[in-house]
Order: sequence, then C-alpha cells, then structure tokens
Amino acid sequence: MKLAMVDDRFVPVDTLDPAYYDRGLYFGDGVYEVLRSYNGKIFALDEHMERFAASMAAIRITGIDIRTVRQRVEQAFQTAGLPNAKIYFHVTRGSAPRNHTWDPSLKPNFFLTVSPVGDSQKEKTRGVAVCTYPDLRWKRCDVKSLNLLPNILARQDAADRGCDEAILVDEAGFITEGAGSAFFAIINQALQTAPLSANILPSITRKFVVKAAQNVGMAIEESCLTPKRAAGADELFLAVTTKDIIPVVKFDGTTIGDGTPGPLTKALTAEFLKFTL
Amino acid sequence: MKLAMVDDRFVPVDTLDPAYYDRGLYFGDGVYEVLRSYNGKIFALDEHMERFAASMAAIRITGIDIRTVRQRVEQAFQTAGLPNAKIYFHVTRGSAPRNHTWDPSLKPNFFLTVSPVGDSQKEKTRGVAVCTYPDLRWKRCDVKSLNLLPNILARQDAADRGCDEAILVDEAGFITEGAGSAFFAIINQALQTAPLSANILPSITRKFVVKAAQNVGMAIEESCLTPKRAAGADELFLAVTTKDIIPVVKFDGTTIGDGTPGPLTKALTAEFLKFTL
Repeated sequence: MKLAMVDDRFVPVDTLDPAYYDRGLYFGDGVYEVLRSYNGKIFALDEHMERFAASMAAIRITGIDIRTVRQRVEQAFQTAGLPNAKIYFHVTRGSAPRNHTWDPSLKPNFFLTVSPVGDSQKEKTRGVAVCTYPDLRWKRCDVKSLNLLPNILARQDAADRGCDEAILVDEAGFITEGAGSAFFAIINQALQTAPLSANILPSITRKFVVKAAQNVGMAIEESCLTPKRAAGADELFLAVTTKDIIPVVKFDGTTIGDGTPGPLTKALTAEFLKFTL
Repeated sequence: MKLAMVDDRFVPVDTLDPAYYDRGLYFGDGVYEVLRSYNGKIFALDEHMERFAASMAAIRITGIDIRTVRQRVEQAFQTAGLPNAKIYFHVTRGSAPRNHTWDPSLKPNFFLTVSPVGDSQKEKTRGVAVCTYPDLRWKRCDVKSLNLLPNILARQDAADRGCDEAILVDEAGFITEGAGSAFFAIINQALQTAPLSANILPSITRKFVVKAAQNVGMAIEESCLTPKRAAGADELFLAVTTKDIIPVVKFDGTTIGDGTPGPLTKALTAEFLKFTL
C-alpha cells in the first residue's frame, strides 16, 4: 500500500489504524453475536457461545479461542455494571492489505460493546406492525456473519412503511424469518415457525420459545408459512434476543386478531421470562 | 454505548476511532470500486464512476457527491505517482451506534488506497487453473457491495486446491462468474459469457472484452455455460480490472486446449490493450 485516504485527508499508511483495513470492513469477513442480561444475569450465554463457535468454524476463522471470547464477554459485562445490558461482539479474520485469500496466521480482531438494553415495553403492550420484503440474502443464513446488507435494506424499507420489522419471503413464496428476528404464527392453538435450514439463523430465542410452548402444552409445527397464511393467523409474534417476544398486530396492513397482543403470545412470554430468572 | 473493548483492552467510548463503529464493518453497508492505471492513465474512469453511482443508488447511500469521489480518486492517483497503480476505494453509509435502520443525515465514510498494480505476466504467459464452487452470494450481485464473504470463501477454497480463481455455479447448475472476475469461453470461434442479470456484476473489463471481440470480428453469444461445457471449450479466460485478460488452461482438473493460452485469447488481449493506450 503506497497511499491511503480517509474522507478528504491523506493519511500516512504506517499510521493508519488497523480498523481501516480490517477484513471485516473489506469483505464482511467476520461473525458476531448479540446477548442480553436480565437483572444482572447474562441470558443463554452457553448457547450464544456455542453458536458463535459454529459461525467461526463455518467461515474458517481460527486463531482465537472461544474461551477467550467468553472471558472477555463476562469481564466486559461485569465492568459495565449494567443489570439489563445488550452485549454486542464480533470477531473478524484480521487486518491485512486487501486480498481475497487470507494468511492462516492472521490474528483475528475482536470488538465488543455493552449498552443498556432498549425499553420494549410499548412494543410488548401494543404489538407492532410488520411488512414483507424479498429475502435477498446469501445461502448460508445459518452463519451469523457481518454480511447484513440485505437485512438492513429490508429493515429500512419496513421503517419507511411505518413497520417495526421486515418479514423476509423467499423466491418460492415462503416466509423464512424477520430481517433481525425469528417469526412465529399461532394457528388453531398451534405454534408454527419455519424449520431450521441453511436459509435461517438458528435463533436462540426461537429455541427458548419452542421450549416455552412445550411447557404450556402447545402443539409445535415446523413448516413454512406463506404471507397469506400469516396474515390469516390467530396470533403472530417476533422473537429476538434483545426483546424476547414481541407481538405482531399488523401484517402487510392486515390486522391480526383484534389488533392487540393475543392471549397465547402473552402466555408464551410469561413462560419464556421464567427462563431468564 | 456504555463500554467498548478492542481485543483485550477496554477503550473509552469517546476516544474510539469511528472506523470501529462504521456501518461498513457492522453490516457491510457500503459499496466499492477497484480501478487501475496503465502507464500513468486511469483506465475506464467514467465507466467505474458510473457503476459506483449505480451501486450507491441501489443501496440508497446519499450524502456524498459522485464528483467529489471522482476528484479524490484523481487527486490520490496524482499524489501517489505510480504509473501502474491499483486504486481501491469504498464509501460506507457512515459511523453510528449499531442499529439496522439508519439516519438519512448520516455522513458517509470514504476510504481509498493506491498500490502498485501486481505483476500478472506469469499468469498471462502460462495461464491459470480454476475450479468450481457453489454460488452462495446474495440476489443483488449487480451491486458492488462490501458483502463479499461468499466470494472470499470461494477464492480461498480455490487457492487451497492450487487454483487461482473459483468459478461460481448457481443452483440451476450454470456458471455465473468468477469469485472476483468475469468468466469467458471460446467455443467454435465464438465468445461466450453469461448475460448480465441481478446475479452478475456488470464487469467493466467484460464490456471492453466484448468490444475487443467485436473489433476482431468474433461472434458473441451471451448465454449461461455449464461446468461441463466450459471444460470442453476451446479456450477459457478470466477478465478482471487489475489483470485485464488471464487465460485459463485448467478447469476443474481438465486441461483446456493444449494447456497453453489459446490464440483467440491472445488476439483479444492484444485488441483489449489498445483501449488502454
């Protein structure tokens, strides 16, 4: 590299912060996790670490030990002193001059932030509106990678249409998941969600929702929904780490049920929250 | 944001370089270009700027004028003083706390590097080996975005198998393009390449290759090739900005022609180089 420019300034190449030539920036060559704590306790830390290790393995990032990552997460959480915290972290393959292939000895970069978890009480009480958007993502959505451009474009489109989340629909016309959440329907008292595949993130909140449904004796059906079937469901909700369960009361403009969070969604939420104690 | 950690160090949030919370890093929320110069003259600058503007528009990045970008590219090239330079630049949507949706007033980040263009004489003289890999990319590959994880995984797999490039094959069994190049076959004296679509980058080198083929009177057929048909072609080559035309002499282990760069590939290269004068 002979010369570097940041905005309108030339920057001596040897003084450039490695963040500027991080492969995470050049290629989205990294994986991430988002965790939250409830009242001073990180929720599902084991599960998040297990998924993170799987994401790293899938894109062949080595050179950072999963125990080191876990220690840093715990240390940062303790240091921040926030009982209800959102913890974001990512690992990228490292910083190097831009080249598609990588040197296996490259040192991965780790980055983490802790913030207060947002208040989702209003969304929980009133429910949210969602709208559909084409699922333009790559074919390994089971990997929680930094390639999230299709997700943010979908989410922004939803926001522009006054919705809180975009529900992604694949080329065959089936719902995969939300741009940043898992998606569930309740139809005839049964919980319905898409089966896990390479096209869907193995959501940890989803896993606990399914467990909650089992605990309250609900039937669980793993099958793909069409937007039409979703719009006709008795209840709909989203599941996401930072907000656990969020009722959906409007789907592509169609009011769900009586337009307020449904009774089974509420029952599942109560059951889910027991896991967080 | 309450706390930030870079590797094993806590970093005061207000001293964090904005590169650490660039949306380009969080989401791959940015677009890029690679240009090169031949003997002191940037090749196809207009075309690259036009494509870059289209990429920005496709992902709705505003707030940076394309003329400003062009001025910076020209200024950096002049300042670097490299007659044969590779110029990389990207624009991301900007730096902000991590949130899927964006504030339209966010200031985009610009980053550029100039390096000496690599020497590809050996590859041109001997030709290179390529191998196929599933095309796992998203559904808007016509946008030159920073979501390049599937590309680098494909390229690294090729390198591990002793190949210079991965040729991507879609679910229907057709070749789209190389992980970082356009792909061409010559069959019965005719030039064959995949038609442009949302699944293919509108390669600028491709455009000039087609023009060169017209100039030498070759027939041009835009249709999708299967790996089997590619392996049986008379000649194969890659087209990429930094190296223009690179002959392919081995495809998934099958020797192409007599295993040396073919005569029509050489003729096209000679014709192509006239554009760069």
